Amino acid sequence: MADPGKLRGIFTPNMVPLDAQGKINEPELRRYVDWLIDRGVHGLYPNGSTSEFTRFTPEERRRIVAIMADQTAGRVPILAGAAEANVRETLAACEYYHSLGCRAVAIVAPYYYKLSPDNVYAYFQEIGRNTPIDVTLYNIPMFASPIDVPTIQRLSEECERIIGIKDSSGDVAQMIRMIEAVRPNRPEFSFLTGWDVVLMPMLLVGCDGGTNASSGVVPEVTRRLYDLTIAGQLAEARRIQADLIEFFDPTLYSADFPEGFRVAVQMRGFRMGVGRQPLSERHRTILRDLEKTLGAWLRKQGLDVASPPAPLPTLDPEQIRAIVESVVAELQHRGAV
Amino acid sequence: MADPGKLRGIFTPNMVPLDAQGKINEPELRRYVDWLIDRGVHGLYPNGSTSEFTRFTPEERRRIVAIMADQTAGRVPILAGAAEANVRETLAACEYYHSLGCRAVAIVAPYYYKLSPDNVYAYFQEIGRNTPIDVTLYNIPMFASPIDVPTIQRLSEECERIIGIKDSSGDVAQMIRMIEAVRPNRPEFSFLTGWDVVLMPMLLVGCDGGTNASSGVVPEVTRRLYDLTIAGQLAEARRIQADLIEFFDPTLYSADFPEGFRVAVQMRGFRMGVGRQPLSERHRTILRDLEKTLGAWLRKQGLDVASPPAPLPTLDPEQIRAIVESVVAELQHRGAV
Amino acid sequence: MADPGKLRGIFTPNMVPLDAQGKINEPELRRYVDWLIDRGVHGLYPNGSTSEFTRFTPEERRRIVAIMADQTAGRVPILAGAAEANVRETLAACEYYHSLGCRAVAIVAPYYYKLSPDNVYAYFQEIGRNTPIDVTLYNIPMFASPIDVPTIQRLSEECERIIGIKDSSGDVAQMIRMIEAVRPNRPEFSFLTGWDVVLMPMLLVGCDGGTNASSGVVPEVTRRLYDLTIAGQLAEARRIQADLIEFFDPTLYSADFPEGFRVAVQMRGFRMGVGRQPLSERHRTILRDLEKTLGAWLRKQGLDVASPPAPLPTLDPEQIRAIVESVVAELQHRGAV
Amino acid sequence: MADPGKLRGIFTPNMVPLDAQGKINEPELRRYVDWLIDRGVHGLYPNGSTSEFTRFTPEERRRIVAIMADQTAGRVPILAGAAEANVRETLAACEYYHSLGCRAVAIVAPYYYKLSPDNVYAYFQEIGRNTPIDVTLYNIPMFASPIDVPTIQRLSEECERIIGIKDSSGDVAQMIRMIEAVRPNRPEFSFLTGWDVVLMPMLLVGCDGGTNASSGVVPEVTRRLYDLTIAGQLAEARRIQADLIEFFDPTLYSADFPEGFRVAVQMRGFRMGVGRQPLSERHRTILRDLEKTLGAWLRKQGLDVASPPAPLPTLDPEQIRAIVESVVAELQHRGAV
Repeated sequence: MADPGKLRGIFTPNMVPLDAQGKINEPELRRYVDWLIDRGVHGLYPNGSTSEFTRFTPEERRRIVAIMADQTAGRVPILAGAAEANVRETLAACEYYHSLGCRAVAIVAPYYYKLSPDNVYAYFQEIGRNTPIDVTLYNIPMFASPIDVPTIQRLSEECERIIGIKDSSGDVAQMIRMIEAVRPNRPEFSFLTGWDVVLMPMLLVGCDGGTNASSGVVPEVTRRLYDLTIAGQLAEARRIQADLIEFFDPTLYSADFPEGFRVAVQMRGFRMGVGRQPLSERHRTILRDLEKTLGAWLRKQGLDVASPPAPLPTLDPEQIRAIVESVVAELQHRGAV
Repeated sequence: MADPGKLRGIFTPNMVPLDAQGKINEPELRRYVDWLIDRGVHGLYPNGSTSEFTRFTPEERRRIVAIMADQTAGRVPILAGAAEANVRETLAACEYYHSLGCRAVAIVAPYYYKLSPDNVYAYFQEIGRNTPIDVTLYNIPMFASPIDVPTIQRLSEECERIIGIKDSSGDVAQMIRMIEAVRPNRPEFSFLTGWDVVLMPMLLVGCDGGTNASSGVVPEVTRRLYDLTIAGQLAEARRIQADLIEFFDPTLYSADFPEGFRVAVQMRGFRMGVGRQPLSERHRTILRDLEKTLGAWLRKQGLDVASPPAPLPTLDPEQIRAIVESVVAELQHRGAV
Repeated sequence: MADPGKLRGIFTPNMVPLDAQGKINEPELRRYVDWLIDRGVHGLYPNGSTSEFTRFTPEERRRIVAIMADQTAGRVPILAGAAEANVRETLAACEYYHSLGCRAVAIVAPYYYKLSPDNVYAYFQEIGRNTPIDVTLYNIPMFASPIDVPTIQRLSEECERIIGIKDSSGDVAQMIRMIEAVRPNRPEFSFLTGWDVVLMPMLLVGCDGGTNASSGVVPEVTRRLYDLTIAGQLAEARRIQADLIEFFDPTLYSADFPEGFRVAVQMRGFRMGVGRQPLSERHRTILRDLEKTLGAWLRKQGLDVASPPAPLPTLDPEQIRAIVESVVAELQHRGAV
Repeated sequence: MADPGKLRGIFTPNMVPLDAQGKINEPELRRYVDWLIDRGVHGLYPNGSTSEFTRFTPEERRRIVAIMADQTAGRVPILAGAAEANVRETLAACEYYHSLGCRAVAIVAPYYYKLSPDNVYAYFQEIGRNTPIDVTLYNIPMFASPIDVPTIQRLSEECERIIGIKDSSGDVAQMIRMIEAVRPNRPEFSFLTGWDVVLMPMLLVGCDGGTNASSGVVPEVTRRLYDLTIAGQLAEARRIQADLIEFFDPTLYSADFPEGFRVAVQMRGFRMGVGRQPLSERHRTILRDLEKTLGAWLRKQGLDVASPPAPLPTLDPEQIRAIVESVVAELQHRGAV
């Protein structure tokens, strides 16, 4: 592959539609991928936090990326979340995603246990030395061990395969610190922000793009904010940034993340199914209220609130057998077979 | 099965020995299980945080419990960690551990995402309604979504299958609150503390036992603290509790958890292998220093510092083939075959 | 003064009654002091957190202690909060409280700024070297810079005048650590817990007493818990400890601290006046609800819910002058003067 | 006074030089004020966190502002920190600062106790209703109760006298939220950031200026960053912002705040004296190291590292008496008197 260049622009951390059995809804996922690409996102980012990667099995995580790689067919680059139970499993996932033609993988710092910076370094170093595919570090201190600036700097200097960082801290000063520490030596290293509410100031201090949940719902808006900021149209960008906060805050904070985003994607016309984390009565009420809030916001943006297409009837094998039998019987009765 | 009674006493959250390839070292795990039972622990608790459950694959987690159940052969009850990626996978694990004859499972609150109390409730309710095996809630707010007192109370009232809580917060007042909220209605509900440094005061306020990492290293000491406290020999218990803190603090805090415990178990004579989380140079130095600290402490306790038996030579298949061939050749040469 | 011995027992961190002008209500404070002593508290602790020391001026803090020292008249020891804006001012307060015959002062670690342990040490060292009166360290990590165990140990070894610590962290293991670090060298050093909800377990691990806000409301109950625990009557102590939690939790957590305690003291019959921190409508509602909760709890404890006596009429100087004049005129009229 | 207009630009939170006795060094404070004004700061901000307001007595706080108001003589506006022990004392300070001709006061949210948002509102509402001078809210969640967006919005709508907010959270998204909530109704309301490391992005999202500790050390640099950003020279601003981070981070984080800034101001040629918080040996070493770091940074900026003028000899009265006597004796000896 020729030098694929720097990661740049808006990479969508897409949610995964589920069917009535709670399994991956492949046709809807394919439709969603097309819809996102059509609306201008620069790349796709499966198996991130918005994608609920921890709620899928290792096999499902692979299947999600395989479906998306197939559907994308090279139209946009894929940045695939590849964190597994340990380094060995993670590297195996890296190889698989490499074989699928993904542009790079994103690997979240170890979570559950809170690791010290030196062991976070050791973890990524071992991955960086053995991965067959480019790696983006994924810093999300609210959920996982933080990746500090000296660690990022050292990894960027020692591991050519580590080519970027996706930072979801939302700390603009920290972004400047990272850029200052890395860019002089690695000008092609990519800095992506996962914190939609500061996308504009992040880009203005030198960020290359974002992996923004909002782009999974309103790719038109996130993309426009990106374009305006890059073009230096700051007054207009400021307005869109404020609009995006008005969307992001209730979607993120009113319900346990990422339930609000599931509702929001559904409102753009996708059958998302029922999430895997059971929801309380209180939460279901919150989400119904959120729907109203988001409906009003979407309409204000001039965007349609779509009803998802009626779910395809779901039949169990027994029902299918019965239907087939009755049809066959009817046909036989009519002398057709 | 007859009513197996309340969970009571010290349940050891055992680490898992690994071999030179980083795989589960089954013979050593069996030897370790015997050693623990011989030293008087009341039960075993695989797939907890000390057991590094998140660093094994779903298949490995099952295999660990299968080996231990087989080796234990009913001598002590097993409380098996059963948390998987989602409710469906968790319930499948519950069924499997049930089929192995485990006494109960322990299920940590959802982690990575921080859930609100009502959704923590919804999660455990769905499990509690469908599990074929008794369930112990596992509250460890430093790593996972906290399980608050109203949630525990409600689950204890609604789900008969939920029979206890393992609490690793170390908050003694919170333990009293939980006991007051649950015990009047569910006198057989079990309260276990996972915080070794307050085992004595926890037992004195009404706790039934502990799941204590120290018991995987010095089962003699943890068990003695339990016995003395239950017997009301408080002056002596106070001394042992202070001793245990002197062990626990450096083992827990000097290195990233649970690396210190791996070193400590090794010092009791077990081949633990190299952990799955890569360690930095700094960490390796810390662990060598910890070895000295723990050595001094063990000797002060009158306990031997054992060297683990030399690792069995590890041969790759190619080497084995070569050896066999040369032996066969030699035998042929001697006319023996 | 002869060796006054170790600080031991329950020291009440008393709130300060205010009059209709928001000033210290001296007669009510004196009445409150008598009431507390009559109900068996072992000492008094003005100018602590419950006493809202930060909301009084330096002059008022001195006056509160002066009134209480005068009213106490040596019946029980006084531990006076002496923290002021800086070391020089704090030492001046120490001298003044010494001149009033206080048993010791309590000095909270520096707050607002978060100091590192070495500067917390430097701060107390300078005070410990220059104070004319015994000093108790005051550790309250939720409000002020924490005082860690090495700092306490070092100060206890270097400063004879530092004779104890009041710890409001509620961390029982930390209490054991402190006792282990200090008691071997300073057996008379005093350990007091400010966290009522673990008073029993704290005493059982070796604590000498408590500075407990509950003792300012229900000194009968706090004292009884202390006595039962010291006497080894653990089953009964456990019951009282649970009762105390039932009181403490809503009083502490439902409203901003220490507003709930003001309401609670008022319910024992004292005119507390209106606090100096303005309260929102929502907070006033919360406090009215709390009154009902506490009323039920007090009655369950067999304690009377007293109405505070009607406030004494407050007269401004002009009114007083007019009354005096009219009385004098009347007396003159009657030929009496 | 005519409408003084919106607060805009860089307001310096100045440290206070102390003399050999640890008292306010008035001549040096006056010299510092002139130096700051000469270097272009738009206003002065005494009694803030950098100014160590909590370490001065109420009388000293007033004297600091009085000296500065006198020295400033109207050349730049003064924003005076006016938080005192309670609302009454705070309002008295407001009146005094009003009488001195200060432009406005800044009042930090209640600290020590952590207040809920509704009581933070109640506190500022009572001040806002009674103050004779314009008030700036001061939000610094790392040290004091946070002031949330609904509280700011409500206060801005209800209290005309509340004319701005100084926010030291450094949260750029929160700044956008505040501006969106307030500006439509109160276009003249001022938003100042106290977080130097994001001054540029804060200005780009709509902030009116800053109260930046760096401007007390390198007013040239802070002012230049402000001017470049306002002028839309973003590439150059980005460079200066990165430089400022290189200064700010070690000055803020290496030593307990604000000790690093004291050293830094001293390096610009001011006799700062010894701070009121006693420093450990370790801290003194840290500060000596910081001096080297800052020296290199200043030189890189083309700024001189000035030695503070030799301290004036400090003589105690006894020494002065002895000198006078010996001079008089000598003069007598010479027959001069």
